[in-house]
Order: sequence, then structure tokens, then C-alpha cells
Amino acid sequence: MNIDMIRAAARRLEGHVLRTPLLNSPFLDEVAGRRVWVKPECLQHTGSFKFRGAWSALSAMPDDIRKRGVIAFSSGNHAQGVALAAKMHAVPAIIVMPSDSPTLKIANTRAYGAEVVLYDRDSESREEIGARLSTERGLTMIKPFDEPEVIAGQGTCGLEIAQQAAELEITQAEVIVCCGGGGLTSGIALALEADAPDLRVRPAEPEGFDDVARSLASGKIERNVRTSGNICDAIISPQPGEITFPIMHRLVGPGLVITEDQALTAMAHAFNRLKIVAEPGGAAALAAALFCGDQIEGDDVIVTVSGGNVDAPLFSRALDMLA
Amino acid sequence: MNIDMIRAAARRLEGHVLRTPLLNSPFLDEVAGRRVWVKPECLQHTGSFKFRGAWSALSAMPDDIRKRGVIAFSSGNHAQGVALAAKMHAVPAIIVMPSDSPTLKIANTRAYGAEVVLYDRDSESREEIGARLSTERGLTMIKPFDEPEVIAGQGTCGLEIAQQAAELEITQAEVIVCCGGGGLTSGIALALEADAPDLRVRPAEPEGFDDVARSLASGKIERNVRTSGNICDAIISPQPGEITFPIMHRLVGPGLVITEDQALTAMAHAFNRLKIVAEPGGAAALAAALFCGDQIEGDDVIVTVSGGNVDAPLFSRALDMLA
Repeated sequence: MNIDMIRAAARRLEGHVLRTPLLNSPFLDEVAGRRVWVKPECLQHTGSFKFRGAWSALSAMPDDIRKRGVIAFSSGNHAQGVALAAKMHAVPAIIVMPSDSPTLKIANTRAYGAEVVLYDRDSESREEIGARLSTERGLTMIKPFDEPEVIAGQGTCGLEIAQQAAELEITQAEVIVCCGGGGLTSGIALALEADAPDLRVRPAEPEGFDDVARSLASGKIERNVRTSGNICDAIISPQPGEITFPIMHRLVGPGLVITEDQALTAMAHAFNRLKIVAEPGGAAALAAALFCGDQIEGDDVIVTVSGGNVDAPLFSRALDMLA
Repeated sequence: MNIDMIRAAARRLEGHVLRTPLLNSPFLDEVAGRRVWVKPECLQHTGSFKFRGAWSALSAMPDDIRKRGVIAFSSGNHAQGVALAAKMHAVPAIIVMPSDSPTLKIANTRAYGAEVVLYDRDSESREEIGARLSTERGLTMIKPFDEPEVIAGQGTCGLEIAQQAAELEITQAEVIVCCGGGGLTSGIALALEADAPDLRVRPAEPEGFDDVARSLASGKIERNVRTSGNICDAIISPQPGEITFPIMHRLVGPGLVITEDQALTAMAHAFNRLKIVAEPGGAAALAAALFCGDQIEGDDVIVTVSGGNVDAPLFSRALDMLA
């Protein structure tokens, strides 16, 4: 896993992935007490950065392997990213989802062209189902974060940040990244190490699900006690990855931790001031920039808004935070 | 008023104005029955394309004139555009607003650094107040649309559309533009005439406020009967401009007309599928693409989302349209 893989992914992504802009607002600068630059990956195809990694993984496969198709386990943003990237490569995709997934997520994943296989969380093992389908149909598994070509795809977001920061003459800044398993965080960190070494990455996580912050502090992989029960579900995973953690340990930290109310308030600010739709997990880094300013250094902070797949009732709840 | 002025404005805007991306979603394509490409000017500084024209006008002034300051009449997007562009040029701005303007709009305009002068709609004339202040302080008026350098600034959006369409290999398409006085519409039309002559501009307006559509049909300037009482307030003006209308008459049409419910529904689709915040007037062109398909030709349609300055209650009402 190295910068050359990220640069190669960037060449494969060219023309297929949206180069998201870098947004700012004097109103947010005032709340944060420093200049805040926002990378809105919610505008990316399928509404999250996950499309980058999915495209990277699919486009890196040998033709004869790829044409048999791909498989992924996910009920969220990774599912949609893989589904659309596979459709655009004209190859089959199977997404294995829990049968109690929200109807809309199932419908969206199908609409992006994937075959959805549902399983019962209580009586069935998704790993067994996945293994059986992979063997029967010769499908390749695309893991959500602990996979070099996926990390390379997410890292292209970091190449863009380095370039955009240089255009703005920002040479020193903290770059806060919404962090689940660490695919986006480690990818951006590798990209910035090469192209903008004075931009330092810090992961943002929800309170009670700060496995990465704790792992960075202890120097070894720590697990979350729970993996559900927070509105920032998009960035909750059991623990950092085997590939992502060593990268993060070397380049990233310390972690920032935000509350659910801070995530909701950041969503409302993003609505008011940037005119973008953030989901709670996607607003974690912005929340950290706005509300954890005492733990941040420098005149400029760059944050990812990593996804925008939120339903209307939860979004309305966020808007009420500033009412 | 010509293409050279637009190109000159583009050079002055470089590095100061956001180059907004071109977004799309397979879900919107399905609703529209053709590919829909969205130019999200809601992401522009101050939340609307108006910042382009304001920057263009300010940056075109001779130094000694500009440093005395500028004045504008507006309670909306033009006010905020002029206020921020003046602040970034470090010159004073006075915005003359009705005293019954929403508190938030007054506060925002002040927060962008402008001095707000309130007047009573019933007992005072904003023209008299403006003339007095201009004389006393040597301020230059920046009109909202019927002003060549403002049109040139809005036209830079058209240069970007031409370039982005070429990158996507779209050589023929209708370009639907949210239309009030015609500054954005005529500016984009001039830019496309030069750089993408097979992209044809069509204005979108709210039902009952379709002065431009009627003017294009009759060949002379027609007025609206009313100038208030529609949620698409950002794109309602009494009549097309003396400068904008001849350009539109030569290059643009026929007009498309949408209902308030269609604007609200388009806002909900933009939330769901593009993760952007559109105000009702800013969603008029998208509404036309989605719901007036029988009046549109071709496989591709490009639309502006011209602004996103909408408050939470009205936005929540839009989200309810798809609930």
C-alpha cells in the first residue's frame, strides 16, 4: 500500500469520479474561530466517497476476473458505491444485506443495478452466503476498507485536497476526516504524506465508538464495545483495519470525538451555510472543526463531509437544532 | 454586451469564484426520461450565482471609483453577493432593504460586511434614498441584472457549462436556466453562442410570473401582473431587462413554466439524489427538466440550480412532497 497505488487509482478514476470542490463560508469560520474548508464528498456519485474505492477496486481487476462480477456485504454507502461502479463497468454485482435493512436502501441498491441477496441476521451467516455465492459464480469480494485498491481509491480524495490546498496557498493545516474502518483516513494520509506533508490528518468519530482514537492512543487495535445505536452509523465499524491501522498509527492523530447533537448541529450549519446535505456520520469532521476547536491547531482546518445519504425525517431533526 | 466582456470577467473571477461542478444522478435521469446535468450554483459563495455578477461589476470598476464604495437595492441573493464581493475588495457596500425584510436576511447581509439601510415600503422611495446616498458618499449603484458587467459575470457560468459539456462529450442539449430579470439567462446564452452553439438556452419561470416566456412569445417586453405571492421569489421581477431582453429574444426560448408544487418536489429530489440545497426559485429549471419533459428535446438536458438560500421550515415543506 503506497502512494504509487493512489496515483494509479487517480488515473483510472479520471473522468468517472467527480472532482469535488473545496467549499467555505465566513459564517462557519466565525463559529470555528479559524478558516474552515469543506471537501463535500456527499456530492460524489452515490452520495459518498465510497464510490472512489469501489471504482478503484473494479478498475484494477483483470478483465477476465472482473467480468464474472463482484460481491460486497453492506447495507450502506459501500453497497451503493459498489453497485454503481459495477454497473458502469457492465459487470454483475451482488450485495448481501440484512433482511431488516431499510426498504429505501434495498431499493436504491437494486436501482443502481445490483442483485440484492437478503439474509436473516439471527439465523444466517453473511460470510457463508458470501462464500457460497463467490464459489458458485466466481465473484470477487470487495471489502469496505481493509483492501489496498479500495484505500487507493479513497486516497484520491487526498490528492485533490493537496492540490486544492496548494491553490489556496494553504501550506499548513489539520485535515479532519470522518473515520470508520479507516479507508478514507489512511488513504488521505498517504496522499498528503507525499503531496502536502504539512497537512496533518486527524480522524473524527462519534462518542462511544472511538475505536480509532483509542487505538491511536494505545498503539494497538482496540475494539468498540457496541457497533450500533448511534446516528453516525455510516462511520461505525468494530475496529480499525489490519491494513489501515498501521498507516494511521504512523501518520494520523490524535483522534477527535463528537456527540450526536454536535453531528446534527453540523448538518444544520452545512445546510444553512454551504447548501449541502450531510448525513450524521458524514458531518462528524465538520462537527469536530466547529465544536472541538480547543483541540485543533492553526489558522486553517480542512474537513471531509464524507456522505449525504440521510432520510428526510432525520434531516429535519438536524434542522431543528438551529431553530 | 458581448462575449469578450464575459471572457474578461472570467479572467477577473479566476481564483475568487467557485467553479461549480456538473452533477448527475441516474435516479433523476429516470424521472426526466433523459440525462439530467445539474450546475449547482447554490454552492457558489453566498449561496447563489449572484456573487459572480457582483464580483464582475466590482472588479471592473476603476480603483478610484470602487474605493468610494457600492450600493444595491435588494433583500435577497443580489444583496448578499454584492456585500461579500465588496468586503473581499475591501470597499464599503450599502444595501437598501425594505424594513419588513426577514431578520435573518438583514443579519446575513450585515454579517457579509455591508451597511444595511432600511426603508419603509409605504412611505419612502428606495430610489430617492439610493440617489441621496450615492451623491453624498460617491457610491456606485450595482443593478441586479440590467447591467453589462453583471451579465458578463453571470455569463462565466455559461463558459463553464460549455467546457463541462465538452468534457462529457455533450454536443447538443437544452440548457434550462432559472430566470428572473434575465441576467443569468442572457449571460449564459451569450457564452454558449460562442463556445457551444448547439446548446440552446430556455428560461424557466413560475406560473403566473412568466413575463420572459410571454415576452419571448410576443417579441416585446411584457410585464407581470403581480411581483409577489410565490415561493419562487428569488426569480420574480416585474419584467425582463432592457439589455437582457434583446439578447434573450435573439438566442433563447421558448420559456418553460412550472408550478410551486413542482419547484418543491424538485427541491426534494435535489436533496435525495444530489445532496444539494435548492431554494424554490433555484429549483425552477430542475423542475422543468423533471416535469415538463414533453416540451424538451434531446437525450441530455443541463439545468442551473441557481440558489440555495431557503430557511428550514420551507425546506422541510419541500421534503414532505416525497414523504
